[in-house]
Amino acid sequence: MRPPDDLDQLFEGVRACDRVSLGRAITLIESGRDDRRELGQELLARLLPRTGGAIRVGITGVPGVGKSTFIEALGTRLCAVGKRVAVLAVDPSSSLSGGSILGDKSRMERLALDPLAFVRPSPSANHLGGVATRTHETLLLCEAAGHDVVLVETVGVGQSETRVSEMVDFFLVLMLPGGGDELQGIKKGLVELADAILVHKADGAALEQARATAGEYGAALGYLRPKNGSWKPRALLGSSLDGTGIEEVWETVLEHREVLERAGGLAALRQEQRLAWMDRLIQEGLQRLFAAHVGVSNSLEETRGKVKAGILTPAQGASAILGLYTDPAQEREAR
Amino acid sequence: MRPPDDLDQLFEGVRACDRVSLGRAITLIESGRDDRRELGQELLARLLPRTGGAIRVGITGVPGVGKSTFIEALGTRLCAVGKRVAVLAVDPSSSLSGGSILGDKSRMERLALDPLAFVRPSPSANHLGGVATRTHETLLLCEAAGHDVVLVETVGVGQSETRVSEMVDFFLVLMLPGGGDELQGIKKGLVELADAILVHKADGAALEQARATAGEYGAALGYLRPKNGSWKPRALLGSSLDGTGIEEVWETVLEHREVLERAGGLAALRQEQRLAWMDRLIQEGLQRLFAAHVGVSNSLEETRGKVKAGILTPAQGASAILGLYTDPAQEREAR
Repeated sequence: MRPPDDLDQLFEGVRACDRVSLGRAITLIESGRDDRRELGQELLARLLPRTGGAIRVGITGVPGVGKSTFIEALGTRLCAVGKRVAVLAVDPSSSLSGGSILGDKSRMERLALDPLAFVRPSPSANHLGGVATRTHETLLLCEAAGHDVVLVETVGVGQSETRVSEMVDFFLVLMLPGGGDELQGIKKGLVELADAILVHKADGAALEQARATAGEYGAALGYLRPKNGSWKPRALLGSSLDGTGIEEVWETVLEHREVLERAGGLAALRQEQRLAWMDRLIQEGLQRLFAAHVGVSNSLEETRGKVKAGILTPAQGASAILGLYTDPAQEREAR
Repeated sequence: MRPPDDLDQLFEGVRACDRVSLGRAITLIESGRDDRRELGQELLARLLPRTGGAIRVGITGVPGVGKSTFIEALGTRLCAVGKRVAVLAVDPSSSLSGGSILGDKSRMERLALDPLAFVRPSPSANHLGGVATRTHETLLLCEAAGHDVVLVETVGVGQSETRVSEMVDFFLVLMLPGGGDELQGIKKGLVELADAILVHKADGAALEQARATAGEYGAALGYLRPKNGSWKPRALLGSSLDGTGIEEVWETVLEHREVLERAGGLAALRQEQRLAWMDRLIQEGLQRLFAAHVGVSNSLEETRGKVKAGILTPAQGASAILGLYTDPAQEREAR
């Protein structure tokens, strides 16, 4: 690609919400090649004034909870009333990437064909700095392309939920009907991120159980301090099969957005989200630098062994490792 | 101090559980001077084979919940049956350091006078690397001195709880009677760290309310995944004024320890705790290096401003900062 001509073309293409251009722009952002990624950042910098306008919803839940059918049901409804909807997946094992053990062929096929929808699977797992690293940028590109709603899907078992919750406006956790054991299986901290919990597959014989489960989650949410003082997280019921509860989820998202706007405005929130994202990228970069340091990685295991065996104190071990990390001679050796 | 003579003396003194020697050893560990801290680490390395044997209990709760009266009640009982008890405080505002707004003069005075007890206030807040940095080492020194029980107090509003929970065997959260609003006030994640919650000040007119509160916390604990599969956290009732429930807390600690030992043995746990502590010290060291980098700190605010204003993308901002951090020229300039 020859800059800047093609960058101009991409800029116009993304602005016009051309799917091919948007796809190419995201590929640039996700590229493993520094020069291409920098082009992507240059493009994004030009598009930044057009970002920030979408309603951003994070959606998570364990495999089998029905994330893809829910996203298809919600996305199709939004498109039907003229909304442009983008769907992004963070984890390589999320449903968008076909991670389902059922190999369901109809996975979001209907939504993907809607001219108002843009469905983008997650980048590959071997991506530099973790698979979620570029999600925020991809989200911004989708906003610049004029999408009214961006749905970001994660699988709810990894580290990505916290990061996604920092970049979206509303975080929805899907749960299966069934109390007791299921409640015990909540990933630590997942419920704390929720602006709403949807007990999904609340249909047929499972409806009664789902109702009880929603009651229990409602009580559990009451024990947690709300993420922000003005919104009280709630537990909802829904079925993508019957189409029940989907509308209520969306009304809840809109109600939450009103509360958000009253509380301090969207612009301030977007600024905070950008800064939080920069801080996270810096932290990840620092971790990468440390892990890639040859002097450190050569002796970390040995030092850990000595601390484990009680030959060194933890402070002596930490000091030895940090000493290697900051020693310029070690650094040169490492190159 | 002239090493190694005095180090030998301190070594013998700590081994003999001489309070003055133990106090001096802790002061070395906490010292702001590198040479003295290294002496402390040398001493600790020699004492390491004698560590790991105590029952370690973390105790937290908001100001006013009665941590110091509880610790005095529990500690006095343990001393009465011949146990050596050490009490450490992590935060400068914890009750041991006299952080009470009531200025209670009897603060652990009785316990501090017991020949079997060792009460050590927290290091000052301006301590290099945070106030909790040396707590693990102090705990090890107390163990080497032959204490059977080490109680570590934190105020339950900061970052120290997670770190303390990593170094103790049992983590106790004190709560006030009263549901509703109080339950809403739980610090995020605090309940998840608890091996038991004690609803304290459960006496007189507050007894009924305390009972209801304990029931509610018991239910809340049921919604959380246990820290380890074999222990189910529980909610207890107690009053240090009446002396009720204190015994039950201790029985719970002992029962938990049995479960721990069945689950994999204390030695394995102690190794894990030492490694976790080393990792934490390394992480804190990396953060300090970053914060102290002149090139970074000179331009961090400006870069944040540009990201906030939408002139740079978050990735461009992070890249610029990490570029400064890794640029050898910048590093030289910084010196």
